[in-house]
Amino acid sequence: MHKNTSVKALPEIEFWFEFASNYSYLSVMRIEELARLYQVKIKWCPFLLGPIFKSLGWNTSPFVLQKNKGDYVWQDMARQAKKYGLAWTQPTQFPRSALLPMRVAAAYINVSWIADFCKAIMHINFVRDSDIDSATVVHQVLSDLALDANLILRDMESDGNKIKLRQQTELAMTKKIFGAPSFIVEGQLFWGDDRLEDALHFARGVYERN
Amino acid sequence: MHKNTSVKALPEIEFWFEFASNYSYLSVMRIEELARLYQVKIKWCPFLLGPIFKSLGWNTSPFVLQKNKGDYVWQDMARQAKKYGLAWTQPTQFPRSALLPMRVAAAYINVSWIADFCKAIMHINFVRDSDIDSATVVHQVLSDLALDANLILRDMESDGNKIKLRQQTELAMTKKIFGAPSFIVEGQLFWGDDRLEDALHFARGVYERN
Repeated sequence: MHKNTSVKALPEIEFWFEFASNYSYLSVMRIEELARLYQVKIKWCPFLLGPIFKSLGWNTSPFVLQKNKGDYVWQDMARQAKKYGLAWTQPTQFPRSALLPMRVAAAYINVSWIADFCKAIMHINFVRDSDIDSATVVHQVLSDLALDANLILRDMESDGNKIKLRQQTELAMTKKIFGAPSFIVEGQLFWGDDRLEDALHFARGVYERN
Repeated sequence: MHKNTSVKALPEIEFWFEFASNYSYLSVMRIEELARLYQVKIKWCPFLLGPIFKSLGWNTSPFVLQKNKGDYVWQDMARQAKKYGLAWTQPTQFPRSALLPMRVAAAYINVSWIADFCKAIMHINFVRDSDIDSATVVHQVLSDLALDANLILRDMESDGNKIKLRQQTELAMTKKIFGAPSFIVEGQLFWGDDRLEDALHFARGVYERN
């Protein structure tokens, strides 16, 4: 009787990010507000950049390997953060190891606190300029979110949870992702924080046409 | 008597570009209108990307060397061109040799027809999908601009003119440019067509403050 009154599901954007990645920092801080504005659902997709860089023959970030590009990136980041009204400290260590918090993110993709967790970890790396790959730090972040940090950290030791992040990274490679942040909407890849608005705009356009 | 009525010179943006570079195509087509809007003077700065890539150990564009990034770039270019309302054809040869038209650009940086010349060459490469590094093609472009093509092409054979492009490329390296397009405003480097508006905004801000 009410066939035409069904509500369409919101379009979805896959958000592929890395806690070690400075341009991912911008997107982690910006995406929630923008996704609300465009009425697009975010699918959080943590993955490791390291194995992708390795497949290109690099042993670290291109921002370290290419000196001029690396110098530029920190000027650019300061300007971009200012443009978006985000706090920013040039990290004294880059890229920072992020395995443990990345594992937590991969294990809890679908929970309500994923955005807050990601923002808190990014804040520690790129505003407080502190290490993020330690049980102490992750415990504190989880506790601040009123979560059972001991339980979650114990879970991270299980093979099942370790494998989740590896699977995410393999999935990223299957999807031909080559850098972070990346966004995928209806199979279309968008690379870089600069393309976040384009990706959301595309998602909205697909939604309107359907 | 009229000390305070002197007109301030417009702020200047250095526009570093390469005819072989697809993202330079976007900026060559966009910069005039935007510079008028922001009231910023353009300094046209052609340079060769090849020697810069070579200094990084690459024998061609990273879009060729990195397969996934290369595949992505053509999707991205189609979307960006559509966004900006620009004609676009994915080149069947990339990157195209551009030495002769680059030499002409380097020799005629300060003439009134530099923008039209650059747009015409870019159009041949990225809309008509044709070679640009030939005397026939450059002759036609110059003639279409009602210029003495024979005279200009004869001039390109002189060592003085050959050296100009080499000097531009060396200057780009001194300025730590690592890709194209790049923009420099008051010593600040901005990389990529995505940063054109930021660079112009920065130039305007410097002007307002002075």
